[in-house]
Amino acid sequence: MFTNKLKAQWAEGRPAINGWLSIGNAFTAEIMAAQGYDSVTIDAQHGALDYAAVLPMLQAMRASGVTPMVRVPWREPGAIMKALDAGAQGIICPMVNSAVEAAEFVSYMRYPPLGQRSFGPTRAAFAYAGYGVAANDQVLALAMIETQAGIDNLDAIAATPGLDGIYIGPADLTLGTQGGRLPPAFDREEPEMIALIRRVKDACKANGIAACLHCGTPDYAAKAVGWGFDLTTVGGDSRLLAAAAAASVAKWRDLTGAVPVQATKGAY
Amino acid sequence: MFTNKLKAQWAEGRPAINGWLSIGNAFTAEIMAAQGYDSVTIDAQHGALDYAAVLPMLQAMRASGVTPMVRVPWREPGAIMKALDAGAQGIICPMVNSAVEAAEFVSYMRYPPLGQRSFGPTRAAFAYAGYGVAANDQVLALAMIETQAGIDNLDAIAATPGLDGIYIGPADLTLGTQGGRLPPAFDREEPEMIALIRRVKDACKANGIAACLHCGTPDYAAKAVGWGFDLTTVGGDSRLLAAAAAASVAKWRDLTGAVPVQATKGAY
Amino acid sequence: MFTNKLKAQWAEGRPAINGWLSIGNAFTAEIMAAQGYDSVTIDAQHGALDYAAVLPMLQAMRASGVTPMVRVPWREPGAIMKALDAGAQGIICPMVNSAVEAAEFVSYMRYPPLGQRSFGPTRAAFAYAGYGVAANDQVLALAMIETQAGIDNLDAIAATPGLDGIYIGPADLTLGTQGGRLPPAFDREEPEMIALIRRVKDACKANGIAACLHCGTPDYAAKAVGWGFDLTTVGGDSRLLAAAAAASVAKWRDLTGAVPVQATKGAY
Amino acid sequence: MFTNKLKAQWAEGRPAINGWLSIGNAFTAEIMAAQGYDSVTIDAQHGALDYAAVLPMLQAMRASGVTPMVRVPWREPGAIMKALDAGAQGIICPMVNSAVEAAEFVSYMRYPPLGQRSFGPTRAAFAYAGYGVAANDQVLALAMIETQAGIDNLDAIAATPGLDGIYIGPADLTLGTQGGRLPPAFDREEPEMIALIRRVKDACKANGIAACLHCGTPDYAAKAVGWGFDLTTVGGDSRLLAAAAAASVAKWRDLTGAVPVQATKGAY
Amino acid sequence: MFTNKLKAQWAEGRPAINGWLSIGNAFTAEIMAAQGYDSVTIDAQHGALDYAAVLPMLQAMRASGVTPMVRVPWREPGAIMKALDAGAQGIICPMVNSAVEAAEFVSYMRYPPLGQRSFGPTRAAFAYAGYGVAANDQVLALAMIETQAGIDNLDAIAATPGLDGIYIGPADLTLGTQGGRLPPAFDREEPEMIALIRRVKDACKANGIAACLHCGTPDYAAKAVGWGFDLTTVGGDSRLLAAAAAASVAKWRDLTGAVPVQATKGAY
Amino acid sequence: MFTNKLKAQWAEGRPAINGWLSIGNAFTAEIMAAQGYDSVTIDAQHGALDYAAVLPMLQAMRASGVTPMVRVPWREPGAIMKALDAGAQGIICPMVNSAVEAAEFVSYMRYPPLGQRSFGPTRAAFAYAGYGVAANDQVLALAMIETQAGIDNLDAIAATPGLDGIYIGPADLTLGTQGGRLPPAFDREEPEMIALIRRVKDACKANGIAACLHCGTPDYAAKAVGWGFDLTTVGGDSRLLAAAAAASVAKWRDLTGAVPVQATKGAY
Repeated sequence: MFTNKLKAQWAEGRPAINGWLSIGNAFTAEIMAAQGYDSVTIDAQHGALDYAAVLPMLQAMRASGVTPMVRVPWREPGAIMKALDAGAQGIICPMVNSAVEAAEFVSYMRYPPLGQRSFGPTRAAFAYAGYGVAANDQVLALAMIETQAGIDNLDAIAATPGLDGIYIGPADLTLGTQGGRLPPAFDREEPEMIALIRRVKDACKANGIAACLHCGTPDYAAKAVGWGFDLTTVGGDSRLLAAAAAASVAKWRDLTGAVPVQATKGAY
Repeated sequence: MFTNKLKAQWAEGRPAINGWLSIGNAFTAEIMAAQGYDSVTIDAQHGALDYAAVLPMLQAMRASGVTPMVRVPWREPGAIMKALDAGAQGIICPMVNSAVEAAEFVSYMRYPPLGQRSFGPTRAAFAYAGYGVAANDQVLALAMIETQAGIDNLDAIAATPGLDGIYIGPADLTLGTQGGRLPPAFDREEPEMIALIRRVKDACKANGIAACLHCGTPDYAAKAVGWGFDLTTVGGDSRLLAAAAAASVAKWRDLTGAVPVQATKGAY
Repeated sequence: MFTNKLKAQWAEGRPAINGWLSIGNAFTAEIMAAQGYDSVTIDAQHGALDYAAVLPMLQAMRASGVTPMVRVPWREPGAIMKALDAGAQGIICPMVNSAVEAAEFVSYMRYPPLGQRSFGPTRAAFAYAGYGVAANDQVLALAMIETQAGIDNLDAIAATPGLDGIYIGPADLTLGTQGGRLPPAFDREEPEMIALIRRVKDACKANGIAACLHCGTPDYAAKAVGWGFDLTTVGGDSRLLAAAAAASVAKWRDLTGAVPVQATKGAY
Repeated sequence: MFTNKLKAQWAEGRPAINGWLSIGNAFTAEIMAAQGYDSVTIDAQHGALDYAAVLPMLQAMRASGVTPMVRVPWREPGAIMKALDAGAQGIICPMVNSAVEAAEFVSYMRYPPLGQRSFGPTRAAFAYAGYGVAANDQVLALAMIETQAGIDNLDAIAATPGLDGIYIGPADLTLGTQGGRLPPAFDREEPEMIALIRRVKDACKANGIAACLHCGTPDYAAKAVGWGFDLTTVGGDSRLLAAAAAASVAKWRDLTGAVPVQATKGAY
Repeated sequence: MFTNKLKAQWAEGRPAINGWLSIGNAFTAEIMAAQGYDSVTIDAQHGALDYAAVLPMLQAMRASGVTPMVRVPWREPGAIMKALDAGAQGIICPMVNSAVEAAEFVSYMRYPPLGQRSFGPTRAAFAYAGYGVAANDQVLALAMIETQAGIDNLDAIAATPGLDGIYIGPADLTLGTQGGRLPPAFDREEPEMIALIRRVKDACKANGIAACLHCGTPDYAAKAVGWGFDLTTVGGDSRLLAAAAAASVAKWRDLTGAVPVQATKGAY
Repeated sequence: MFTNKLKAQWAEGRPAINGWLSIGNAFTAEIMAAQGYDSVTIDAQHGALDYAAVLPMLQAMRASGVTPMVRVPWREPGAIMKALDAGAQGIICPMVNSAVEAAEFVSYMRYPPLGQRSFGPTRAAFAYAGYGVAANDQVLALAMIETQAGIDNLDAIAATPGLDGIYIGPADLTLGTQGGRLPPAFDREEPEMIALIRRVKDACKANGIAACLHCGTPDYAAKAVGWGFDLTTVGGDSRLLAAAAAASVAKWRDLTGAVPVQATKGAY
């Protein structure tokens, strides 16, 4: 029987650390999958990639044993079902604003009679022994709440039958609820944002589903785990790479005193 | 007229920091090209990529103004000329063991009557205004010395007309000269390896060509600049990414106390 | 004038055998197109592929003369029109549950004033001489009925002006109508499923449109042709390959007595 | 601060010439971006390409300084937001038939509280210094009017807050409004079509937004500029290439008298 | 420590069945790797693929635990080393005609001081824990003998230090030794060819290296195992697929009596 | 039996016009193959493409019936044989400087006992019915002479058994023979270059092989046909596209008086 390891980990009450892939490349996926994350999510919404990259990235991560997930661009049945057929074991779905939308999302994730997922797990069936209708119990449906409407409907969304968790993107949640007063970013420190984030978590706990938070640093993520979050994403491939490279260059310039050559500015 | 900015920088006596690309992806190339390197080299030898990735990576770096270079898999005219036509402004060529091989390498880089490069700079001519036969003066030919034979012929190689520099890969130089006594790695601290590395640098200086060293850390690279090296590579995309991700996961595990779940080990 | 050969074949009352492509590769498409099928369908719904593979697959099949079709991921105008512009001569559309949805689907297939297809057959016009507004008469609109709602609206769907046929996927039809009582599979032998499949066929015949069935074996497909089906799909590339390879290995193991080495189990 | 050069050009009252890309290739994009266009649009609707090609094409055009835009396949939030995140500075959106649809389209282009664009400009933030929420003011929303309904709602559409312009595709506008009486084509000479095209332009001018027209020839485009159009597309890569090649072959055959060899007709 | 499972299997005296990949696709690779083969070889010589496909194919097979190998296009150091760095655990090298060439081939497979492989196992080090200089002992060097010269030098080739085996392609061996008298094919039944094939096997046995044979059917392969061959390839993806599809179509035509429609012949 | 249409056309004494592909894209290949050329050559030497693009380009051209050829990057057996296996019906080989090199090149093109081509026409056998050892008689071996050494050995090269023709690239021929006195370009008008070009043609005629010339314009090509050339290449996709687009923009600017906006210069 095919078993979702992240779901099993949650069942044991153990919080998870999730990796994040914005670069559309199977080698970066393989590298990231080897760094100790419990799950790794391919961002097909804001990442620089689409299905053509998602497929080989899922293949490249299979040997690692991390639980692979995909964030889809939008609440569209075609995109969600294709990601599942390709082997995603969880779907993070943006812009779930009501219980109706949450139910619609869940319906795309489950085969009838539970939902309306179309049958044909072409790669999943090769990759995961025992995959079939029983996948209904294993693939994770994680809804994003990103607007005031979503917050207003929080409890109803969290109570959606079959929903496995709520995933918070702090940048969008801030933009979507604060009327432009606060800039988009992760790792919010404003009391009202922390309260809002914890309120979403509480609604998850009250409904027995997972609370997931996108974070920018291990420190903030650890704090969120302390609050009770079940999964925290920390950083992501493009940000980790850029930050590490920039730090490396800065240190070299600091040690050598070699300043960037002004004459070399400008594109070729 | 097309001008090589790295060559111009060297003419002013200013050391350069070079970025390194082992991931075959145009977005990682664009990210890396934005971090402040003077030049960025695509590793078509050991990198997980070939020409099909080199081309869009060169395109993605053009706007940044960094000097793009390519390390080719081997001393082959086809591979070298294709990289140049695609827009590489410098070629790092592995396994140059004698003056004859160095001259052969240089001949692939120059149009007749200086060499035997075939004419047809299909992309280079679109990307770099004024590219043509005059490119003979601008594209950089950097030879790698990696064997005892190469060391034995060091002075003759360094004196090769048209050669622009020597690039040292410390792992291969160690394997190739120490009879298996020392493991392959960067940032050598053994006195005999430091002496050897500095001897190559001295031969470059004596012949008025650039000395280039592949390093693992900014600290070692800064030390090499102090020795007189003209270009140091520091790290590379796959290593930077893996190290940054691993550190991030380790910190999260340290802060949360969440250990990896043993039950989840093993491929799907 | 561009003519759809499958449509012409149906006009002569001749049943067709359809090939099925789930592997996103132009060489497998070219191989499959050479095996004697009348038409070959690229499965962009459950197949491990998307538009980026569909395009070269359509190009690779052109020389063979088979009629190329595409199953789209969902009833979306963008996906349908892109497949047509790329050269698909028929579209199989999942999840058509009502006459309204059927009419909507047909409208995406026809240029105004018949429908709302946007004009710009970029590749189709290069590949098929005489392609233009007249394509309205040639491209085939095949709707899938996969739910109880679809069955309830069968006659109204079949009567949709401009619809060319109904395509049955037995796995989804079973899941969608039997309340989880029966597992998903092709080649149904349950009397109620056979009755249902034949009832769809009868509705097609009553409305002068084609009845199409996805089958797992030539034997079942031949039986369906006997029932009056106009097109039967038999197997598919990924299943044919897996089955042939598995049989080959099994025979070798049987003949040699060489058992799989237990010590070699597990991923690298 | 990131600035859209096309928007700035319009603010100075200067008409623009737009290039058009139907070939899914980063090298053709780089070539086209070097020919003197003010902006270049990748056609993800009718072009033979999808997101997997759009991304490297946007990268390849960055160095040229042309304003890159994308025509999306349909009015879908996922496709629009992905194109923006990839670096498109303008979106041409097909089939906008009412003020409601126009407002919906605009909402996908702007971060809250102005709209509902999700935050995560993964590549755009690397490519354009200063990109962030301020992009709201810079990315261009251009709606296509292609049906009688769209024409009936012209003034309301043109008055949509945040809409930057209307883009006319004459082939679809003709099909969508003339009941099949006229064939689809660019460069309409029928008085009623000219009147309709100018009426759209007038509505744009009345609302202070840009009027844009897809043209087949520089001559017609120049005429449209004379009418007051702010942007005219002239030709496109696939048409320019085919016409130039065909003319070249025809001239050769004319000069040499060498007729095509009949015996060589037919596919291999 | 990284261990080659095929080498371990041979050490136990157990014959292996090898799969063969001529289709450049990671999904076919993943399918084939799941069918029970002990090893699977990607054919970068005659297969419709190059390095750009080899890399994701190796990634897609990792989870299966089969031993992945690559046949390179020619005896070229660049191609061989790139395949190894990408994760190939064995290299099949065409056209080894002398002991000098065999030694040259082996030298490309081993790090100094044993050979001249350049150090930089970029993907291999991520995929196989403990990969490093110790890979010298694990990666398999298999030489092809395909010409009369190769046969004349058989014993010297088989005695090459570090060579792990000889791989026979019967089509080339026949063309290369029989002066055009016999057509190229697998599964030779001519007594002189059987004698030649067994003579190569005997030379392998005499030198303690593996004897490998490319076969067309399990029956012939089983016979070869009986002769003492250590590895037999049986069929290959493109042949298996074509044969299975053709058989399926033939059976359908036989059962239905539906003949191919002559009018539909010819390319579009 | 598989027949090369270009060879058949030459046998009838009819000159051919060859198209040229430098853009690595199957759609541009399909467009170009539809414009009336007798043959179309993919330039894998100077074109912005490699094998990964050559394969789908060959597939996309098959339906057109043009004779597809490939110019390889260098005189390498691996590259030549891979292009043939992929379906190239002729190979243009750069840098043939002596009769020995010409014979070597021809040997890569023919199966034993005529040459040393390895057997495995994986795609060619699917694409061309009857392809097999008989391909020896059909695939065209065209050598490039580009150096003074090549000219010095002209007669011996032209007399090479099995060589089908000589292909002249005037840019390289000029660079290679004129000591840097003349710039590289097509369509030479210098008397010494015309004499040299005609001398090569004469040597071809004397040996009963085809004389082929790369030209920039139909006018020059027609002149060359008048001299007796059997095949002339006219322009190429990237040049045709750039010239057509530039002319279109120039005409628009001329008609509208709209000058390029200086403020918009510079990369983003």
